[in-house]
Amino acid sequence: MAKGFTSREQDYSKWYNELVVKADLAENSDVRGCMVIKPYGYAIWEKMQAELDRMFKATGHSNAYFPLFIPKSYLSKEASHVEGFAKECAVVTHYRLMNDPNGDGVIVDPDAKLEEELIVRPTSETIIWSTYKKWIQSYRDLPLLINQWANVVRWEMRTRLFLRTAEFLWQEGHTAHATEKEAVEEAELMLRVYAEFAEKHMAMPVIQGVKTTSERFAGALETYCIEALMQDGKALQAGTSHFLGQNFAKAFDVKYASKEGKEEFVWATSWGVSTRLMGGLIMTHSDDHGLVLPPKLAPIQVAIIPIYRQDDQLEAVTEKVLPIKKALEEKGISVKYDDRDTYKPGWKFNEYEFKGVPVRLAMGPRDIENGTVEVARRDTLEKEIVSLDNVVEHVQKLMIEIQENLYKRALDYRAETTSEIDTYAEFKDVLKTKGGFILAHWDGTAETEERIKKETKATIRCIPLEGDKTEGICIYSGKPSAQKVLFAKAY
Amino acid sequence: MAKGFTSREQDYSKWYNELVVKADLAENSDVRGCMVIKPYGYAIWEKMQAELDRMFKATGHSNAYFPLFIPKSYLSKEASHVEGFAKECAVVTHYRLMNDPNGDGVIVDPDAKLEEELIVRPTSETIIWSTYKKWIQSYRDLPLLINQWANVVRWEMRTRLFLRTAEFLWQEGHTAHATEKEAVEEAELMLRVYAEFAEKHMAMPVIQGVKTTSERFAGALETYCIEALMQDGKALQAGTSHFLGQNFAKAFDVKYASKEGKEEFVWATSWGVSTRLMGGLIMTHSDDHGLVLPPKLAPIQVAIIPIYRQDDQLEAVTEKVLPIKKALEEKGISVKYDDRDTYKPGWKFNEYEFKGVPVRLAMGPRDIENGTVEVARRDTLEKEIVSLDNVVEHVQKLMIEIQENLYKRALDYRAETTSEIDTYAEFKDVLKTKGGFILAHWDGTAETEERIKKETKATIRCIPLEGDKTEGICIYSGKPSAQKVLFAKAY
Repeated sequence: MAKGFTSREQDYSKWYNELVVKADLAENSDVRGCMVIKPYGYAIWEKMQAELDRMFKATGHSNAYFPLFIPKSYLSKEASHVEGFAKECAVVTHYRLMNDPNGDGVIVDPDAKLEEELIVRPTSETIIWSTYKKWIQSYRDLPLLINQWANVVRWEMRTRLFLRTAEFLWQEGHTAHATEKEAVEEAELMLRVYAEFAEKHMAMPVIQGVKTTSERFAGALETYCIEALMQDGKALQAGTSHFLGQNFAKAFDVKYASKEGKEEFVWATSWGVSTRLMGGLIMTHSDDHGLVLPPKLAPIQVAIIPIYRQDDQLEAVTEKVLPIKKALEEKGISVKYDDRDTYKPGWKFNEYEFKGVPVRLAMGPRDIENGTVEVARRDTLEKEIVSLDNVVEHVQKLMIEIQENLYKRALDYRAETTSEIDTYAEFKDVLKTKGGFILAHWDGTAETEERIKKETKATIRCIPLEGDKTEGICIYSGKPSAQKVLFAKAY
Repeated sequence: MAKGFTSREQDYSKWYNELVVKADLAENSDVRGCMVIKPYGYAIWEKMQAELDRMFKATGHSNAYFPLFIPKSYLSKEASHVEGFAKECAVVTHYRLMNDPNGDGVIVDPDAKLEEELIVRPTSETIIWSTYKKWIQSYRDLPLLINQWANVVRWEMRTRLFLRTAEFLWQEGHTAHATEKEAVEEAELMLRVYAEFAEKHMAMPVIQGVKTTSERFAGALETYCIEALMQDGKALQAGTSHFLGQNFAKAFDVKYASKEGKEEFVWATSWGVSTRLMGGLIMTHSDDHGLVLPPKLAPIQVAIIPIYRQDDQLEAVTEKVLPIKKALEEKGISVKYDDRDTYKPGWKFNEYEFKGVPVRLAMGPRDIENGTVEVARRDTLEKEIVSLDNVVEHVQKLMIEIQENLYKRALDYRAETTSEIDTYAEFKDVLKTKGGFILAHWDGTAETEERIKKETKATIRCIPLEGDKTEGICIYSGKPSAQKVLFAKAY
């Protein structure tokens, strides 16, 4: 399967595109910019969803569902929001088709024009806050902690599977609070939830920080983000959490009566992660042999492949395999026993390797004689012979070990690929030769940020919340800097 | 809370509309025909989804995701499909907005017109079959058993919350098979899955049958359905499963190489249930006190309400309640202990009653003295005093009892409200006075079906798969009839 597969060295971008399609994760559809998420890719997304959903509920959130369509005028209600979102979007103008009077096929019925055009949601702040106005009257209705799993559409001109698609799947949390403090705490809490998910489940280390003013979400007072480093030295924004202040409450006139009977505007947050995480997962761990999955997100954690020539050998192997499969499943490990006779063992080996299954077991007549099984781990590609008596325990340990190893490997890579830099010359040089994260002083102005971006294509990914907070001198302007910020070229 | 709530007797339709909104299930949005599914309603839908998803996976299906948009020309590829679906739908014609040069707000950018209009999917056969063409080459790729959870849009003129909305949530299964026999078996299997879900989880009895030719899904050779009877004597189509023959395979040229090396068109099914099930759930069980939920789908199965005047009394009650809550949760029962001091016990009683929580426990200082707790069940509204020592076991039994009682009650109602009828005069009379299901002979022609519909508004809900199969004489035409069919007025 890996035959004809581009290596990362050759062309990272091509490697990614081929991997996504060949590992059956997703493919482009006939609709420009819209992807088909294939069953195997969707199964990984479902595992992400399940865990995130559990985390959201554990922090007090409920799910709800709001309309796909947003009246055009709603987008204009929050001034900075419309600038950020109203431009590249799918516009519904008609609600009926009719038979083409000049032949076959159908045409848009000119009589079925909508009075006001509808926008396919690019994000749902406006439609949700127009609803919250009805839901919030008193302090007793607060906090309102709601999440939505949905599809959204942003008419991107240049699309890439998972990383940037016209339609994508995501969750968007939208919360309302009585006080500013509570809303800020919520935005920070959800940032930590995202960071924990990325690190513990995706095995993808992230830097938590806040965006600069110019990189903020349209309508936010503060945008928190997690930033991950991909294998090609480019950064990926993996999740954002916004403190929206009272902007949307004021735009949609959402007030509550406080305990003291005073009318106040409510405070808001919104936060989201999307199928873009799939791109981050792929570009954090995978290699020239295909996908590599952390056990916690692998739809199949263990693939078992029988080696046989005759049917009686298959029967003998199956007899040994089934109790192992059962024992593993009882430990909560998902197992696929692939005894299809339509494919050869070699083909299956390649298949599960390419699809990133964390552990592969293989068993043939010789193994039965010896009471052993061959165990291969996907992260290191190491193989070993394990006694049948120990195999369940061994695989259980591997699940933890592989998860930890992938995280450690990614963390080590990030450490190697993060540079602390004090001069602009060195900054440009590192970007050219090594890439990666660059920690450097910045004077805090949008002008400097913009110039560095223009000259080097590197952007400020975030102002990190943790780490070195000492003051210094901006590498570009020489003006004072409050702390080093995180630069990188980004997806 | 039930104050000012319309009774079923007064106005069933109004009762339904009020119930949906007041029980926090859903409400109309500012976008015509699109609903907001509120957190409590969505939590019920999530329980439905989880169980259906489990059942789909247990029968070998995987989830995937296909684009929201369908190129207009795709709808025309399957001749009868376009007739059924291409008409009332949301049409995307532009992909950009721009600032209005004459003032504030935004307008559609006339330069951003799509070459080919996109339709927001009303159902996904066409976009999925255009994809399956790439996925299916050989018999080894079959069967392809895929399901999608998605939103769809049908521009309905008259909408009702859950029952008929412009946008709704659903699942749509789309399968491809090597043989006709296998595809028919799949369509029948999924019908049984739907029936089992309706009866075992929703406690809603259903009749399984096939649709008449004129009621078939656009593009199907056979449409299987489950039909439920609502409390007002009207039928609700609750789920459909279609045998599509080779229609879509031919329209999208999807062939496979058989084991013998022959090229053949594949055989197809599709099947779906939607948020319409929420309407069926409500209209099967609820009463003049509000929603009634079967325990298996209740987001909160047990509400516990403390009765107290002073804080020390609350503390004493809480001390007794927490171990009960824990013990119930360990049995897999979801419990809400509502110790909010912002609402009075009477308000809470009404609240949980109106929201259909199956069991309510109440405990006050006197109960502590006596070692008892008050247990109220929502289905019968009966209350009893139960010893604290037995309460966990008692509630466990109630979960099963209430689930069974609701099903039995609905089944009894259906038996009472189903009439076997031999003359058209009686048919019209029963429809006028009693409503409900009517089993009567029909000559098998579309003409008779259409005339009966015109004259009485009753439609053939299905030709039942089970039950009396004896021949007879059509009540309308006097011509021969193969078996009695199921008539009703329907939602």
